[in-house]
Amino acid sequence: MRLIETAGGFDLTLAGRTILRHRQDEPCLYVGHGDPRVEMHHGHFDIEDQIVERLGLRHASIDRQDGATRIDLSQAAGLDPLASLILTGSDKGGAIRLEAHDPALNRLWLRVVAEKAEHVWGGGEQLSYFDMRGRRFPLWTSEPGVGRDKSSFLTFQADQRSNSGGDYYKTNYPQPTYLSSRRYALHIDTTAYSAFDFRKDGFHELEVWAAPATVELWADDSFTGLVTALSDRFGRQPPLPDWVLKGAIIGLKDGDESFTRLEKYADAGAALSGLWCEDWVGLRITSFGNRLFWDWKWNQARYSDLDARIGQLHARGIRFLGYVNPYLCVDGSLYPEAAAAGYLALKRDSDEVYTVDFGEFDCGVVDFTNPAAAEWFADKVIGRNMLDFGLSGWMADFGEYLPTDVRLHDGTDGMLAHNAWPVLWAEVNARALASRGKTGEALFFMRAGYSGVQRHCPLLWAGDQSVDFSRHDGIGTVITAALSSGLLGNAYHHSDIGGYTSLFGNVRTPELLMRWAEMAAFTPVMRSHEGNRPRENVQIDEDARVLAHFAYMTRLYVHMAPYLRALSDEAAATGLPVQRPLFLHFPDDPRTYTQQESYLYGADLLVAPVIQPGVDRWTTWLPAGTDWVEVWTGATHQGGQDVTVAAPLGRPPLFFRRGSDWTALFQGITTVASTV
Amino acid sequence: MRLIETAGGFDLTLAGRTILRHRQDEPCLYVGHGDPRVEMHHGHFDIEDQIVERLGLRHASIDRQDGATRIDLSQAAGLDPLASLILTGSDKGGAIRLEAHDPALNRLWLRVVAEKAEHVWGGGEQLSYFDMRGRRFPLWTSEPGVGRDKSSFLTFQADQRSNSGGDYYKTNYPQPTYLSSRRYALHIDTTAYSAFDFRKDGFHELEVWAAPATVELWADDSFTGLVTALSDRFGRQPPLPDWVLKGAIIGLKDGDESFTRLEKYADAGAALSGLWCEDWVGLRITSFGNRLFWDWKWNQARYSDLDARIGQLHARGIRFLGYVNPYLCVDGSLYPEAAAAGYLALKRDSDEVYTVDFGEFDCGVVDFTNPAAAEWFADKVIGRNMLDFGLSGWMADFGEYLPTDVRLHDGTDGMLAHNAWPVLWAEVNARALASRGKTGEALFFMRAGYSGVQRHCPLLWAGDQSVDFSRHDGIGTVITAALSSGLLGNAYHHSDIGGYTSLFGNVRTPELLMRWAEMAAFTPVMRSHEGNRPRENVQIDEDARVLAHFAYMTRLYVHMAPYLRALSDEAAATGLPVQRPLFLHFPDDPRTYTQQESYLYGADLLVAPVIQPGVDRWTTWLPAGTDWVEVWTGATHQGGQDVTVAAPLGRPPLFFRRGSDWTALFQGITTVASTV
Repeated sequence: MRLIETAGGFDLTLAGRTILRHRQDEPCLYVGHGDPRVEMHHGHFDIEDQIVERLGLRHASIDRQDGATRIDLSQAAGLDPLASLILTGSDKGGAIRLEAHDPALNRLWLRVVAEKAEHVWGGGEQLSYFDMRGRRFPLWTSEPGVGRDKSSFLTFQADQRSNSGGDYYKTNYPQPTYLSSRRYALHIDTTAYSAFDFRKDGFHELEVWAAPATVELWADDSFTGLVTALSDRFGRQPPLPDWVLKGAIIGLKDGDESFTRLEKYADAGAALSGLWCEDWVGLRITSFGNRLFWDWKWNQARYSDLDARIGQLHARGIRFLGYVNPYLCVDGSLYPEAAAAGYLALKRDSDEVYTVDFGEFDCGVVDFTNPAAAEWFADKVIGRNMLDFGLSGWMADFGEYLPTDVRLHDGTDGMLAHNAWPVLWAEVNARALASRGKTGEALFFMRAGYSGVQRHCPLLWAGDQSVDFSRHDGIGTVITAALSSGLLGNAYHHSDIGGYTSLFGNVRTPELLMRWAEMAAFTPVMRSHEGNRPRENVQIDEDARVLAHFAYMTRLYVHMAPYLRALSDEAAATGLPVQRPLFLHFPDDPRTYTQQESYLYGADLLVAPVIQPGVDRWTTWLPAGTDWVEVWTGATHQGGQDVTVAAPLGRPPLFFRRGSDWTALFQGITTVASTV
Repeated sequence: MRLIETAGGFDLTLAGRTILRHRQDEPCLYVGHGDPRVEMHHGHFDIEDQIVERLGLRHASIDRQDGATRIDLSQAAGLDPLASLILTGSDKGGAIRLEAHDPALNRLWLRVVAEKAEHVWGGGEQLSYFDMRGRRFPLWTSEPGVGRDKSSFLTFQADQRSNSGGDYYKTNYPQPTYLSSRRYALHIDTTAYSAFDFRKDGFHELEVWAAPATVELWADDSFTGLVTALSDRFGRQPPLPDWVLKGAIIGLKDGDESFTRLEKYADAGAALSGLWCEDWVGLRITSFGNRLFWDWKWNQARYSDLDARIGQLHARGIRFLGYVNPYLCVDGSLYPEAAAAGYLALKRDSDEVYTVDFGEFDCGVVDFTNPAAAEWFADKVIGRNMLDFGLSGWMADFGEYLPTDVRLHDGTDGMLAHNAWPVLWAEVNARALASRGKTGEALFFMRAGYSGVQRHCPLLWAGDQSVDFSRHDGIGTVITAALSSGLLGNAYHHSDIGGYTSLFGNVRTPELLMRWAEMAAFTPVMRSHEGNRPRENVQIDEDARVLAHFAYMTRLYVHMAPYLRALSDEAAATGLPVQRPLFLHFPDDPRTYTQQESYLYGADLLVAPVIQPGVDRWTTWLPAGTDWVEVWTGATHQGGQDVTVAAPLGRPPLFFRRGSDWTALFQGITTVASTV
């Protein structure tokens, strides 16, 4: 980084890009004090800040030393500095440590230079907007909401019933990191509540609710270089297990009947890699639907002979997967054990266990800041009850619900622990795998995340979409989620085929299930889900046409396995995600910067899933710089144009680069036996 | 006022009440800079402020001089003061002028000492909450909204259709003035956007978007004394015209047919004082419903022989009333005249007339900052076309729609002119009356207002309620409106009997019409309205039962006329409103402080209108300190309790003070011939 002093200020540049511009009348840093109101209701947070004081630090005093430059900032010359910037690093990358000198200062607002035409991506796993320019994004892990669109009646109903409608920026996995089209990446090392405000033409304003915080920066002429740098920073996933590539993981939660129903999939010609039964722990009936019994072990009443049946499945090359989350229901067997050992988070002002209402049942929160509790959960709960029992994977659900008024073992304030929690939760799961030597062999998948989850979690899933085509909570949000999280070093992403949340009479259509399966065949993992209300929603195995279509898609997925294996190897080497935004490989085509409905599957295949109902044609942008071959027709299209293609059910729009090394495989897609 | 210096600060007291408490660590004043976004859509404003800087002024330097004390405030000792407080006045009342010393400072936040158990009332004409404690109230004249309750489906539909759902604080008539239960009143002399934040236990934070501003204060041991002080400050209305007391004003907008239909009211035995035909100017058809043709003169196509018929009515003791507002439709006859004379507000960056979209038609805004334009509108439009033509009154509609990006004749910025506009509009109407010697004889009524509207507008109406019993936009809001505005010196208030806004299938019921008429009989003016969609909503004269009930209520109104005349005389003398909150006369009963569903009609009659559907009993609080006689049964109840009484249609719950000088009149209510 380079610091250039000017009259009354300075410019900070990174490989020629101006990052900070500080002038007396336009200071780069404001500090202050906020008085927030934070309320949680079933993982939905209502957060409102009153800014008590916000001070522009206009006067800069620069002290250059070996290896680090220190800039003291005060409101005016002659006044004590209220904050300092400490600069370290090279021109390819560096860090700005923001220090405040008064403990009452609990807000930082840093203004980073922006250009009017700039685009920015990242923010963790974003569901509504891939290009974040023009909007403000609070970054706080939470339920994303049902509908997530204040103009939709579904959202209105969710808001009125339970304040759960959500909004465009709400996500299970936020992360204060972005890539800029100016070819740099920025990350704030903090677990505090933060917000990225990309609404202004001339600057991005980055808000952090705690000091100190460190702003990390990377510059690279290529976007792929930036992604690799971020993956290096946050950690690499192991490659996908081989067994996953053999077919779809079928989600059923029908007790013993799940095994019977699995055979319908096999009989229909579906390629199968796993049976996933989240109800392996038993059920609890609530008004939201059937919920699981949050006591993490085999429930023999719901699954008889499960131990033996897992072995039988395994012998056929089909794995069994289960479910776990970081909470323990008060009426389960593990809760008293954990409570007695002091493994649960406590209330702030008493020694009582803090219980969280999850909707008609209460749970304790395993306190992962207590090393003994984390070890117990990894070894005794996941290790013994799940891995040793024979599970090859699980959904590691939740992580977003840490209340801010808990008392934790290591003394961390809830406001700082909340965003850190998904990473602690991922770490416990990863430790369980490692304890049994199963890293890269067994697989868990998470929806919650935060900076660093990459290092521990081998697979993201896009959370609980509504069972529809809606703009902010339907099938299309899965693509935005994969692209945004992928840029930050999460190489593997997938989603619930058919979506999850069915409320207020909103139910799945066969068309939605089929469109979702078409998309999932071109993602790292194909996995179905029955949704929150299986009986009210059509299931794949209940509709012959849907089942046949699904089976065909699993065969397409298996056909793609050699390519996917190569992408997995590439991810392990470079951190590049399997699903990639178009601009990653076509940086010179500015039209690619705002595309969020299509993606590159590796470098050579462009996938443009149909994410609208009732259409049989689909229009998509083909990036400039190469010719594209339409898989189903073999037609060649020049890049740099919108093309419209036939897209009946069973034929997801697919285009490969002319001359790709994988041409034979891509052309072979049309030879896979179709049952559509 | 008394200023008491303390270590590092001061207390400012008013007759023993601490108003300001300034300490180094808790400054009483913050100043700063905001960057607002202001968007208007059909009178609905979307206003969002970004606080760029907010500085606590911790250091006070006091300079006592003859007659005025000056307090210079800076961020710290040794720094230049950024603002000053200039104190003047006595211990009964005084003023704090807030001056900022840097033109970039466009935000002031003053913290006034609060007590935890304190109540506050005022804020102009509030529709949702009479006691404002616990909430924040932006003060900006606008459409109040349809539904005004984000949890209602009606509001949701209005918001989705046209961003017009509104919210609890939105009102046609805001005013930065409040009374406190600590027996003082506070007013901020500004026309800037402001907000009163009453959410904190220890202080009220008053926000003003411009400097300078003057905080005016009054202390009095009695609440009535405070109301009189405010009425003295803002101006007194003339007494009600005698003709008004003779019966109801019937709102019909049916062209010539209105005269025919009026006879149905007379035939049913209704006491009539006026016929109000807002369509006297002709109609325009829009999707909202029939709108008026905004060109202010008799439309002969819709009302043949109107000049003659006005005279005939007058001879029967029935006046004719019309309608006017401060806009001129571009396709009318007055618009070109005004445009040619330069009487219309212009666009900011050109000499073109600024036109406002009122929903499928555009209008110019008469620029009342131009004395010639104001005089023209008062003399030539209202004076000649309305008063000289024979009108005895009119609805002086609107006043809230001044865009903030207009260019005005006197150079006032739109952000400062916007709130001032209703008062300028009232002044033009009052000037028209005065020009014809009709002050106190002809009557106009307004919904819009701001500080000082009291001086010019003889009668408020509560705006455009929805035609329902809903909490935030229905019949009950009219009481809150009367009580809040009444405390600030608006002695006369009334409403559209039956409400106005019928949208999205929400229509009037006969019950609503009857309950509304029961309430209106005990307000200064009884006036009916056909609503925005007369054909889709039941009308009084279309339902024999409703008509008979209405006629009975008009007779009750006339029965009360001697009492109302006395209240009108009292208002002229003291500024006390006709409709009063219970606490005004029962300050020692704290339960009265939060009552907003009942009111005192003068000092001696308590009215508790039924404002819920489907009930025939009603519960209300009777203030402690006297006995109360229930009008309909003669039963005596001790004050200081909730009583539940029979409340069938036709019998609004009424209680008078035992021993009242008006006992005979109150008892006589039961002798009025009932047709219910």
